Amino acid sequence: MHPVITISREFGSGGHSISEKVAKKLGIPFYDGEIVTQVAAKSGYAKELIEEQGEYSSSANKWFDISAASAMYFQSPQDEIFIAQKKVILESAQKGPCVIVGRCADYILRKEGIPCLNVFIHSDMAHRKERVLERYGAIENVGIEKRLAKKDKQRKTYYKYYTDQQWGDYRNYDVSLDSGALGEDTCVDIICELYNRK
Amino acid sequence: MHPVITISREFGSGGHSISEKVAKKLGIPFYDGEIVTQVAAKSGYAKELIEEQGEYSSSANKWFDISAASAMYFQSPQDEIFIAQKKVILESAQKGPCVIVGRCADYILRKEGIPCLNVFIHSDMAHRKERVLERYGAIENVGIEKRLAKKDKQRKTYYKYYTDQQWGDYRNYDVSLDSGALGEDTCVDIICELYNRK
Repeated sequence: MHPVITISREFGSGGHSISEKVAKKLGIPFYDGEIVTQVAAKSGYAKELIEEQGEYSSSANKWFDISAASAMYFQSPQDEIFIAQKKVILESAQKGPCVIVGRCADYILRKEGIPCLNVFIHSDMAHRKERVLERYGAIENVGIEKRLAKKDKQRKTYYKYYTDQQWGDYRNYDVSLDSGALGEDTCVDIICELYNRK
Repeated sequence: MHPVITISREFGSGGHSISEKVAKKLGIPFYDGEIVTQVAAKSGYAKELIEEQGEYSSSANKWFDISAASAMYFQSPQDEIFIAQKKVILESAQKGPCVIVGRCADYILRKEGIPCLNVFIHSDMAHRKERVLERYGAIENVGIEKRLAKKDKQRKTYYKYYTDQQWGDYRNYDVSLDSGALGEDTCVDIICELYNRK
């Protein structure tokens, strides 16, 4: 049976768009927004909060401020969202081959022994800047490099917090691809080829 | 024009064998032992020393022991070998497309603006152990995991010393492949496909 494809990506690397194209080309489900909808239904939290807290640890640090004693009994909204999200990811993967973007899916599925093709997409700053400006436009008074570095840091912290591993570490992925150097379409083709061979 | 392929690899990942097969399949030169021969001719050092010092920093630390003052005037054999090796790598790359294994070739060629396809090959401990035992056999009283960890550390230290960058960091490679999960032949095919598209 074909594996589940998990795709982790640097912000602005085109990883989301690559994931969508891979799913379309292979004719398998693509889970991204769908996960948010299902987590909202399961957890009762608003979609906007899930989008923010389900991959980014922008607010994670504030949970470290609580005392060790209360931490034992206290489950933060971020933790509740992580648990609901983990359930949705496992349920989705159990239905059969699909593409899941971000959200520690590689770690969650590996722990359960579900066969995966784990992919990491990255790109250099020049390509990412260009892509982000094209897609989201400029935000006044906020340097684009600062925005990118912040997003990476948030994903890295989130991944580290829930998996105790380094986000982007080659050991966690079957393949890491530089979408800036190779181009989006080549990345799509390589991932599809690896999927078909596995 | 096609790029030069540089292949960095974890010890025991099959990266050397993959590199050889890639060169054969593409019909381009493969530089590994050839570099050692040329460096020996250029530097006057013995091939055995070049093999040991040209990629591994097993003895690198001892050069740190010399005082700061003498370090300004003193060039270690390792440094001399690095300089000769750098020249040989540049000359080889300038002749046209080829495959170069290890030796900071990715960094050396990037600094000179030579178009490259930079590849990193890794594998999990189980696959590497199996491969090393098959190829080199067991060494009494030396744990295989310890041997692998030591080799990785030596390559990492060497790379860091001469490039000031992290060996294995995804930012330095167009593609990183897990040869244990994907298989050697798949790695060969993917690298050849990326070469032909670049």
